[in-house]
Amino acid sequence: MFNLNSYLVAKNKLINETLDRILLNSSDFSRLVVAMKHSLMAGGKRIRPVLCLAAAETVGGRETDALQAACAIEMIHTYSLIHDDLPAIDNDDLRRGKPTCHIAFDEATAILAGDALLTLAFEILSAVKFTCETHALKWLNIIHSISIAAGYQGMIEGQMRDIDSEGSLLTLDELEEMHSLKTGALIEASVLSGAILGGGTNDQIKQLEVYAKNIGLAFQVTDDILNVEGDPDIMGKAVGTDKNRKKSTYPSIMGLKKSKKFATNLINNALQSLESFDKNSNQLRAIADYIIERKL
Amino acid sequence: MFNLNSYLVAKNKLINETLDRILLNSSDFSRLVVAMKHSLMAGGKRIRPVLCLAAAETVGGRETDALQAACAIEMIHTYSLIHDDLPAIDNDDLRRGKPTCHIAFDEATAILAGDALLTLAFEILSAVKFTCETHALKWLNIIHSISIAAGYQGMIEGQMRDIDSEGSLLTLDELEEMHSLKTGALIEASVLSGAILGGGTNDQIKQLEVYAKNIGLAFQVTDDILNVEGDPDIMGKAVGTDKNRKKSTYPSIMGLKKSKKFATNLINNALQSLESFDKNSNQLRAIADYIIERKL
Repeated sequence: MFNLNSYLVAKNKLINETLDRILLNSSDFSRLVVAMKHSLMAGGKRIRPVLCLAAAETVGGRETDALQAACAIEMIHTYSLIHDDLPAIDNDDLRRGKPTCHIAFDEATAILAGDALLTLAFEILSAVKFTCETHALKWLNIIHSISIAAGYQGMIEGQMRDIDSEGSLLTLDELEEMHSLKTGALIEASVLSGAILGGGTNDQIKQLEVYAKNIGLAFQVTDDILNVEGDPDIMGKAVGTDKNRKKSTYPSIMGLKKSKKFATNLINNALQSLESFDKNSNQLRAIADYIIERKL
Repeated sequence: MFNLNSYLVAKNKLINETLDRILLNSSDFSRLVVAMKHSLMAGGKRIRPVLCLAAAETVGGRETDALQAACAIEMIHTYSLIHDDLPAIDNDDLRRGKPTCHIAFDEATAILAGDALLTLAFEILSAVKFTCETHALKWLNIIHSISIAAGYQGMIEGQMRDIDSEGSLLTLDELEEMHSLKTGALIEASVLSGAILGGGTNDQIKQLEVYAKNIGLAFQVTDDILNVEGDPDIMGKAVGTDKNRKKSTYPSIMGLKKSKKFATNLINNALQSLESFDKNSNQLRAIADYIIERKL
């Protein structure tokens, strides 16, 4: 019986230690680095880096193959949260149960800390001391995929649409496209990077892409559901904020019951895409289940 | 006789056409891309990309060897301007004679357009369709150098110190270190990337690093001087702003006359470092002279 909890604890420990080590050598006196650490080490769920490591293992690779990419992706995710929380965007005071970066420091520092985490992600992805020339092309491809997923044709465009759509009614298709850009693209890049760095075949990578697309959307549907009926004490942030902001969400468009059914169907599709991997995909199966069962 | 003006016109044309083409395929309807273009195509001096191309030529390479890197560096420079202009940082309304990004659009869009240009820079640097495996390691090293120069140990830390030092009196050493981070690091990365991609030897690269360090600082000293005695109509932005903000500058610390002498000495050092390149370095010599003679 696969124990997801022990798995997540072990992976989170590895990811947190690696992230911590990356920022260790920097001057302790820099306000910028303190702000970067504040948000990066605020105890996130680390879903994206865990998916990256799990995908590498599922195709037969080791977690160390994908560790740099996993940490870089978590930095990109964290920077996007810092900037989304800014007064000019979502104006959120609380994140992961702690003051957001611009509250703990100030707006200017939060803007720069976000910029610095995004830049550091690419510094980590291009740190070549452990690679040789034959691996260099693979890493360049990883950088390319991640930058597309995180950029103006991916995550940032999704965020722009999310802002633009506040107060207006989206269709289900528009909502799905927005989420596929805002959240889905980076989750897919996490799984894809892990699968490539773990040495997956083209067939394996394709199957894992189907998995990633489905859990990415399920993740967002669940987020919307938690914003309606989640426990703010467990989540470390306010609930009901989507409704207050008149945001289009899955519950607002299809109702709570249908949203839950939709999330379950997506997870079933994800599980189906793993069939050919057999036991090696225990981690990814358990993560898929966790995504809709989670309370935060 | 080398004609710098024709050279700059030709290089600027190439750079602008390439930048324009990169963003051409994107949807015309995206507000995000319109904002990115607004700032990227606002007619900057293109000093950094020109230096990158000129360095490639100086070591015997072609401009096309370094064109991707040149454009990526200009995107990074532009993103840093967009974020520096934000109300929470410098709160500037005018840049290059046009409304700054957050004035032309809004704050949220400007934050995201900056993020997207930074991310796009790494997408361009990792676009491998014209490279082969033997070039991949070189490009990974370029990405690494540029991300370090632009990140928390370079440009962003410089900007953080610039913000923190407003209203307080810096020593000359502190001022130089701040500028070396804020402006120098990316200018050095521009020259270095060009020299590496143009196929320069280690000796050549070292000499060009000396060149870059000196013109980088001279560029900043001249910027400080222009903020005192420049013509706002020519510059397309307000002057006297440093004094109003009580910023430490070269003129405020060493006076206008000594600042000019200091800039001239730096340019002389830069020219000396080019001696072994002979005629091949005509471009870099002319750019060094231009840097202290410029009116904007």
